[in-house]
Amino acid sequence: MTTPKISRSGYGHLVIIGGGEDREDDMRILSRFVELSGGPQAHIVVITGASEIPHEVWDVYDRAFATLGVQRREAVHLSNRAQANDPALAELVGAASGIFMSGGDQRRLLAIVGGTLLDEAMHRALKQRGACIGGTSAGASAMSGHMLAEGYVELLPALGSVQLAAGLGFLQRVVIDQHFSQRRRLVRLLTVVAQNPYLQGIGIDEDTALVVECGGGIEVIGRGAVTIVDGRHMISNVTELADRACPQLVDVRLHLLPAGSRFKVNPDGGAETDEAPAPLLDILRSLVRRNSLD
Amino acid sequence: MTTPKISRSGYGHLVIIGGGEDREDDMRILSRFVELSGGPQAHIVVITGASEIPHEVWDVYDRAFATLGVQRREAVHLSNRAQANDPALAELVGAASGIFMSGGDQRRLLAIVGGTLLDEAMHRALKQRGACIGGTSAGASAMSGHMLAEGYVELLPALGSVQLAAGLGFLQRVVIDQHFSQRRRLVRLLTVVAQNPYLQGIGIDEDTALVVECGGGIEVIGRGAVTIVDGRHMISNVTELADRACPQLVDVRLHLLPAGSRFKVNPDGGAETDEAPAPLLDILRSLVRRNSLD
Repeated sequence: MTTPKISRSGYGHLVIIGGGEDREDDMRILSRFVELSGGPQAHIVVITGASEIPHEVWDVYDRAFATLGVQRREAVHLSNRAQANDPALAELVGAASGIFMSGGDQRRLLAIVGGTLLDEAMHRALKQRGACIGGTSAGASAMSGHMLAEGYVELLPALGSVQLAAGLGFLQRVVIDQHFSQRRRLVRLLTVVAQNPYLQGIGIDEDTALVVECGGGIEVIGRGAVTIVDGRHMISNVTELADRACPQLVDVRLHLLPAGSRFKVNPDGGAETDEAPAPLLDILRSLVRRNSLD
Repeated sequence: MTTPKISRSGYGHLVIIGGGEDREDDMRILSRFVELSGGPQAHIVVITGASEIPHEVWDVYDRAFATLGVQRREAVHLSNRAQANDPALAELVGAASGIFMSGGDQRRLLAIVGGTLLDEAMHRALKQRGACIGGTSAGASAMSGHMLAEGYVELLPALGSVQLAAGLGFLQRVVIDQHFSQRRRLVRLLTVVAQNPYLQGIGIDEDTALVVECGGGIEVIGRGAVTIVDGRHMISNVTELADRACPQLVDVRLHLLPAGSRFKVNPDGGAETDEAPAPLLDILRSLVRRNSLD
């Protein structure tokens, strides 16, 4: 039996969840993940590599996806890179129609998965077979090429207090933060963008997801919002400051997209079927752009 | 004895404090207030009208200003409009070189002072005699023409959840919030700006002040920062939403000015002695513009 090809474009979806998604009641976000993975016919694998309690985590998602009617569910527990380089496991993951990455610690996940056969298999599943890749909390942070690894910022941005690392790279030119409004992380994201204006910051609230249809558009679902911090026009004094200093930041552009926000986007520009407001357009185009396998 | 004329331009300063300014140790902000009021020669009145514990409040500032070497210190306790319309009291306040408004509740302060002889006397002191007007917490909020009166917003902007009222109008086109980073009020200020893009939001941290030299420039002093939220370029859907809904906001411009930020500004444009980055320029010009007595 072959898993269904979800996306007509051959390219799949990303469901980037800010953590704390409902797993028992309305399951709005997990339902969408299942739908984008092919509905009840989906073949879903749950990668628990970010977590130190993978079996508990798997139990929760196993139950949730079963409730949502998915028959083919598999856990992928990982504790070292050798497992992530196992060709059989990579083949299993590469054949799935839905790949879900749990919460935990994104550094742990990348230390195990980054650059392995499993990593490649996920990219191939997304880009060649139209699979859906979901990730929550750490699993969301892990999706971008530049990954917010760790860092606590109290009340004001503080240079050098947030560390980036290499993520899975399903998205480029962004950095993703999660539990965003709940943990008051705008200041942390501002700190990242102040030092890395190349990256647009994307903050995703709990029980909220940014759904990216590669080549097609984006949508925000759930009960919160997605905040985008764009520092490309920013004027700052970061180069003149010592570590931990609070930078002067002028003209940071902020976008707040509550659940229900939805934009079709043509990644190549051209014919104007785009519905997005102009200041969002190039950010959204970049989000939905299909990046190559390499 | 006449009180010294502070500002050579005939126009004075505003010291807008986000609350919680140090009153015992370094007193960085109160020192500056004293300095801008004429130093040890200053004649300072403290208006406690916002507070329900005016005598306790006065004790604190009486002690602080005494420590800072000011001999002529007077409390102006107000509990009703008749007092604020007393010509003798208005004359006292109008003759002061420094007028300080305490914290408390800005609605109480305005209910007592708004539109009275005392209100007029404060404007005259600032604009004709170069007095310095300071205000902390409620006394800071009260300074703008549109005053943030009350409103609690939890994690996301919520339409209709913040109320504005009429303030003293030393500044126009802005709305001031205080205890800004400490009480995580960016979301509240975004709510105001989303519905009132005419106003630029100014959030001032605790133990931090925005010093406005009318006609000359601005400076941020203390230990925190001033956040400016500019919604003039914003694209939003506020007109389509029900009360309490979270709006979609695109292209809100954010400026973060930590203590030490200082810009000379020529309010009339013209000769470019301005040091401010372009995206800040018209906001700062508006802040330092001398508004007329009427």
